[in-house]
Amino acid sequence: MNVDLSQLTEWRREFHRFPEIGWSEFWTTSRIADYLEQMGFEILLGKQIINEDFVRGRQSAVVEQGLANALAYGAKQKWLDKMDGYTGCVAVLDTGRAGKTVALRFDIDCVNVSETQNPQHIPNQLGFRSLNDGFMHACGHDAHITIGLGTALWLSQNKDKLSGKVKIVFQPAEEGVRGAAAIAASGVIDDADYFAGSHIGFCADSGTVISNPKNFLSTTKIDICYKGKPAHAGAAPHLGRNALLAAAHAVTQLHGIARHGEGMTRINVGVLKAGEGRNVIPAGAQIQLEVRGENKAINQYMADQVMQIAQGIAIGFDVDYETEIMGEAVDMNNDPELVKLVEEIALAQPEVHSTNADYAFNASEDATILGRRVQEHGGKAVYFILGADRTAGHHEAEFDFDEKQLLTGVKIYTTLVQRLLG
Amino acid sequence: MNVDLSQLTEWRREFHRFPEIGWSEFWTTSRIADYLEQMGFEILLGKQIINEDFVRGRQSAVVEQGLANALAYGAKQKWLDKMDGYTGCVAVLDTGRAGKTVALRFDIDCVNVSETQNPQHIPNQLGFRSLNDGFMHACGHDAHITIGLGTALWLSQNKDKLSGKVKIVFQPAEEGVRGAAAIAASGVIDDADYFAGSHIGFCADSGTVISNPKNFLSTTKIDICYKGKPAHAGAAPHLGRNALLAAAHAVTQLHGIARHGEGMTRINVGVLKAGEGRNVIPAGAQIQLEVRGENKAINQYMADQVMQIAQGIAIGFDVDYETEIMGEAVDMNNDPELVKLVEEIALAQPEVHSTNADYAFNASEDATILGRRVQEHGGKAVYFILGADRTAGHHEAEFDFDEKQLLTGVKIYTTLVQRLLG
Amino acid sequence: MNVDLSQLTEWRREFHRFPEIGWSEFWTTSRIADYLEQMGFEILLGKQIINEDFVRGRQSAVVEQGLANALAYGAKQKWLDKMDGYTGCVAVLDTGRAGKTVALRFDIDCVNVSETQNPQHIPNQLGFRSLNDGFMHACGHDAHITIGLGTALWLSQNKDKLSGKVKIVFQPAEEGVRGAAAIAASGVIDDADYFAGSHIGFCADSGTVISNPKNFLSTTKIDICYKGKPAHAGAAPHLGRNALLAAAHAVTQLHGIARHGEGMTRINVGVLKAGEGRNVIPAGAQIQLEVRGENKAINQYMADQVMQIAQGIAIGFDVDYETEIMGEAVDMNNDPELVKLVEEIALAQPEVHSTNADYAFNASEDATILGRRVQEHGGKAVYFILGADRTAGHHEAEFDFDEKQLLTGVKIYTTLVQRLLG
Amino acid sequence: MNVDLSQLTEWRREFHRFPEIGWSEFWTTSRIADYLEQMGFEILLGKQIINEDFVRGRQSAVVEQGLANALAYGAKQKWLDKMDGYTGCVAVLDTGRAGKTVALRFDIDCVNVSETQNPQHIPNQLGFRSLNDGFMHACGHDAHITIGLGTALWLSQNKDKLSGKVKIVFQPAEEGVRGAAAIAASGVIDDADYFAGSHIGFCADSGTVISNPKNFLSTTKIDICYKGKPAHAGAAPHLGRNALLAAAHAVTQLHGIARHGEGMTRINVGVLKAGEGRNVIPAGAQIQLEVRGENKAINQYMADQVMQIAQGIAIGFDVDYETEIMGEAVDMNNDPELVKLVEEIALAQPEVHSTNADYAFNASEDATILGRRVQEHGGKAVYFILGADRTAGHHEAEFDFDEKQLLTGVKIYTTLVQRLLG
Repeated sequence: MNVDLSQLTEWRREFHRFPEIGWSEFWTTSRIADYLEQMGFEILLGKQIINEDFVRGRQSAVVEQGLANALAYGAKQKWLDKMDGYTGCVAVLDTGRAGKTVALRFDIDCVNVSETQNPQHIPNQLGFRSLNDGFMHACGHDAHITIGLGTALWLSQNKDKLSGKVKIVFQPAEEGVRGAAAIAASGVIDDADYFAGSHIGFCADSGTVISNPKNFLSTTKIDICYKGKPAHAGAAPHLGRNALLAAAHAVTQLHGIARHGEGMTRINVGVLKAGEGRNVIPAGAQIQLEVRGENKAINQYMADQVMQIAQGIAIGFDVDYETEIMGEAVDMNNDPELVKLVEEIALAQPEVHSTNADYAFNASEDATILGRRVQEHGGKAVYFILGADRTAGHHEAEFDFDEKQLLTGVKIYTTLVQRLLG
Repeated sequence: MNVDLSQLTEWRREFHRFPEIGWSEFWTTSRIADYLEQMGFEILLGKQIINEDFVRGRQSAVVEQGLANALAYGAKQKWLDKMDGYTGCVAVLDTGRAGKTVALRFDIDCVNVSETQNPQHIPNQLGFRSLNDGFMHACGHDAHITIGLGTALWLSQNKDKLSGKVKIVFQPAEEGVRGAAAIAASGVIDDADYFAGSHIGFCADSGTVISNPKNFLSTTKIDICYKGKPAHAGAAPHLGRNALLAAAHAVTQLHGIARHGEGMTRINVGVLKAGEGRNVIPAGAQIQLEVRGENKAINQYMADQVMQIAQGIAIGFDVDYETEIMGEAVDMNNDPELVKLVEEIALAQPEVHSTNADYAFNASEDATILGRRVQEHGGKAVYFILGADRTAGHHEAEFDFDEKQLLTGVKIYTTLVQRLLG
Repeated sequence: MNVDLSQLTEWRREFHRFPEIGWSEFWTTSRIADYLEQMGFEILLGKQIINEDFVRGRQSAVVEQGLANALAYGAKQKWLDKMDGYTGCVAVLDTGRAGKTVALRFDIDCVNVSETQNPQHIPNQLGFRSLNDGFMHACGHDAHITIGLGTALWLSQNKDKLSGKVKIVFQPAEEGVRGAAAIAASGVIDDADYFAGSHIGFCADSGTVISNPKNFLSTTKIDICYKGKPAHAGAAPHLGRNALLAAAHAVTQLHGIARHGEGMTRINVGVLKAGEGRNVIPAGAQIQLEVRGENKAINQYMADQVMQIAQGIAIGFDVDYETEIMGEAVDMNNDPELVKLVEEIALAQPEVHSTNADYAFNASEDATILGRRVQEHGGKAVYFILGADRTAGHHEAEFDFDEKQLLTGVKIYTTLVQRLLG
Repeated sequence: MNVDLSQLTEWRREFHRFPEIGWSEFWTTSRIADYLEQMGFEILLGKQIINEDFVRGRQSAVVEQGLANALAYGAKQKWLDKMDGYTGCVAVLDTGRAGKTVALRFDIDCVNVSETQNPQHIPNQLGFRSLNDGFMHACGHDAHITIGLGTALWLSQNKDKLSGKVKIVFQPAEEGVRGAAAIAASGVIDDADYFAGSHIGFCADSGTVISNPKNFLSTTKIDICYKGKPAHAGAAPHLGRNALLAAAHAVTQLHGIARHGEGMTRINVGVLKAGEGRNVIPAGAQIQLEVRGENKAINQYMADQVMQIAQGIAIGFDVDYETEIMGEAVDMNNDPELVKLVEEIALAQPEVHSTNADYAFNASEDATILGRRVQEHGGKAVYFILGADRTAGHHEAEFDFDEKQLLTGVKIYTTLVQRLLG
């Protein structure tokens, strides 16, 4: 294996062929582990990197289907055993020399999109379209895996030039901002002095690097489930405990959570399903919602209010309830020192013609949870966007990107590590 | 004092002249006590007959005004001292001979009505109109006091013909069904074998007695008060705890309490007041409501749901709350034996031409609480309506009634006691 | 064909074998028409008997599947053509002699139940279990069809003994009380002087006839659908029109419809489904509800309030809406003359040992809509219950009934017609 | 009269002595008119300067009391006649020479505060405390009137140095942002090329001028009134039309108005009063609310949603309704040219040591409506804050300000007019 575009392209196409949705990336993780093992990394898996209490939005049916698919597609049993049901891995490179620790993060899951059948679509032309029907690497995380592996390969070949440690996080379930919390809470990167992560494409074309995206929206995704008691709506309505009515009142209260004086908030109950039949007092109701805030504290205010309302309704309607956090992301401020460094490194690449330090991200990304974890432990963090031309928007069936940028990505990460640990 | 119409009329007019609203009947109670003392009764007052935990809808401002009025109008300090803030009294007659115990109940409060200035109105013609502006005995409780005193007088004069005991309850605060619960809960009539109570007029004319009114509506009157925290609605809405919003949601939940499969229910939030200014997150809210049910159990179901909702809202909106029962009445079934007896006695009076055993009351009366208390302790109870011609409906400014029926009332009660204890 | 138990049993088992759900009874109707044609009846179909404006709860997918099934199972194309998409038929017998008109009603649809695989179940033993998977004549409407056909056969053979007319209604979609309204509104039985209908079993065993069931609950089944506009919940919540929030508020208002002072009411929103994704302002919401009332007027009050609320919400939330009546039934009082007649006829049958005139039905049945239609046009109506032993409750997978009562049913109906038109 | 501090102080103390609340400033207006008449101005009053359709929050009881007070305090009948019920006036100075038109605005109403009885309070020491009990010039509008009159006096004495026109607006009812809309809509300053307004004090001390306050909050104050029909809550709840329940649901919907993707919003229902008695279906309900938005368009979005909800509720609950706009203010951007000019002029005064161009106002002020009106007609506008030391916060009972700044104010305004029209 050499760190060149041909190797990177090969990897990217391999992973593109078998996309796996969040928390089901068993084959993907196992394949990454295969390569990392070859490169000589220590590989952490399963509960070594996952704090089960912070696992968000992981459905057992998805996990089971993922395991079955992975085996069928050739995942090695030894990795599956170590994963113990949880996808993702962390590769550790210890130079043996005292120094700082750098954590890098690459996300590995796909989205629920059926890849286009358009014959002009490059994966169709070149024969690497998704084999996993209904799923597609339409957000470019196959690029992220690849850049992670390329960076790992270079590090394994250049470890003598470095001191300190590198931890490369291959994170599951970024879609729905579900995977980062469990990895952060495992403490696996609490010793990092530096953290870096990135996304490919977004609104930036090939040749550009956005060194300091701002306005990451903090968000929490929450499910509320009410369980009451059915009763005949004609004969004995007083014997029922009405979960649908409870849920409807919850919705009206949730949308009325007071605005926050210090910044923007959002609340959306996006899905509500309740009741089984017209003439039965409904015994069950499910609510799917999300809140957002201009920063982590404001978002937390919203999430706290949701929990309070969920409980009050349960008491008022005498129904049982459960709430589950299904995803979360926070805002993050890049450390200026690292922003400067990324800019310098990026502009040193001949194919990069410009950088942009003032760009509003206006979306959520759970790398922020990892970045802030490092910052809270005294480290520094940066998240940047690696420009790449795209054939369609992210999450669209015709999405594809300029594979040449894979190498640019690897060069930025490896130079960054060199500058920090060299 | 002789038990004749002239004495009864004199009493009635005296009490008519100084009507006092529920829980402020200090002068009225003191005057009743004066008479009872002359007749030789043991007189129970204050906490001897009142269980403070069950006092409903008693406002301190009303009590204070009542005390001041009573003193100004000549109430004796010794009675006020014994009352200890609580109006009403129970007169006990112990014959000294073993026997049953009979409890009779007469209510003594007035209503918030300004007496008509119509010169044709008899109290105006004969000079006994209300001196207490804005208050009037427009429900006929002055008649009830009088019949109670007349009955007491006869009993004091004929005690040798009887065995056992008689307890005559002069009950405060029947309007709003507020007074009976505290007297019942004091246990003062728990030893009664028989209970009788009545109302004058209602829909029955002079010469008629309704021996068995049915369909007493069970009801509970409840106040809910929410207390939150004010905040500037523009600058810091998130710092407020919104009592108005809590109350509004409470109202929407309260009106949605499930119907009861076994009988009629009612709920009405009749008054809601909240907030002080347009640009302040409202910190206070008051709700006045009532529930009803076809029987005591169904009414209790409604009241329980109200309490549950009140609490759930407080939790969901993080506001403090208080609920207070402001009044209550239950349904009651007359004991057939006593109904028969009342009919027999009534028809034995020459001026009574008919009785009616099948009449739907369709209203609430808190004598039912006392009647059921006696029934629950193994006794028997009856509530009847003493017909009397009226010049206007109850609670109207022109209300007056046929005073000749006062004597009929006394004859029925005294004969009843003779039959039960003779 | 002879009117004997063997013929009736054969018919019943034939219809049991191919049960069809409401508004899909294409084969059932076509087979009934086959027999009625043989007997010489005039047969009315499709829009001759259906007023499309009053068709309730008819889903096009169900209709299409029903048509396909019917063809596959051998329905004649000529009947399907005449049905024009609408199931059910009315058989007319005109004696040619002036006289009264009698309308009889038999319902023909099945329920969504999978027939038991218990080998003891008679249809399994004798080989006539449902061939239409997931559907079963578990309410006994196969008995109703059979009694209708038996009655028709006798009438065709005895028409010379009668004067006037007979109209036999084979009604679709009684389950969910959906079919009667459209037939009533077609006017096809507006000329009837007498109306009779019945149900087999229920709570009455073989040998009993309930001649005067009371307490039919009036009910209306309503669907409300809100359609708004999606928008990104983070970026542009103000551009959405939130159908889920509208529906939730509708639910809270619907459950708060004021009780009715003159009798019992019910409201139940049994099903609510809204929204597609957590981060999208929900653009669609479906509500399934029912209201009930102690009588037709009180039920109508409830239904009117529902419609008012549905509209108010649509305006307040700027969403489009549709309401659809999915079913309806009313209360009905049997005419005493016909009750007497049914009792007399029933008791004249040696196998009937008793009748019961005072039974609370406490459920809904849309024969009441047809019966009241006749009454409103000056005719008389009766609905009775034909006792029959059962192996399980109605709508249960093990339901079966005593087939001997089929003949009893035919005898009651034919004697009734003889007495009315003889 | 000379434009010196002694004259200004005399005026200020005169107006301080008789404060009048918004829309009741009859004496104040009449006194201003007296002075303007002496100075030779054309005086516009009543409907010459008020468009009745845009009058906000004007209560007839307040107007009547104001008129009575004004007469008693010596207002001239001729002014009251011309006012025709509407307070405020516009003084017009036409130089007779072609030129630009400048509009200046001074607000004249007081607040509902009882002036402190602290003997140290200067108005108490010097004998000019409020004679109008419960009302006080605690916001400093007595200063504004005075500066307006001082400016007028100078203009009348220096009109030969100017060309064009000056219109001096003495605006009623600024508190509650109620008065400006009606004056703007009258068109009286539509011909202005320049507009200037200001507030004394606020957060700026003597010697400072804030030349460019930002973040004026757009706001609309709205009252909603629902009128239903009473009914007995026990006997006939279905006959009521429940205004309280309607209002409660309105509140829950109002607080759930969707956040706006483009900027901050606020909603507060600050006051809700409904119902008369516990056992009566409530027939009336009053809601007082306010909305805010980061700019005029976002605030309008909020106000539009309020109106939509108010209507939807009325339809859903079959109650009558009225909405009334009780106040409004918008955001406004100062024109940079005028900001510069104000700074230059201010700093030219020896007593002014600094100006501040970057200050967040974070409150509402209805001068913005007049300023934007001028801008929309092609003119330029500026609003500044004239620093003045204060003894307590605005609207507090101990509020007083440094009277020396009155002269500074007059100098800034007169120099501004000179620069613009000189």
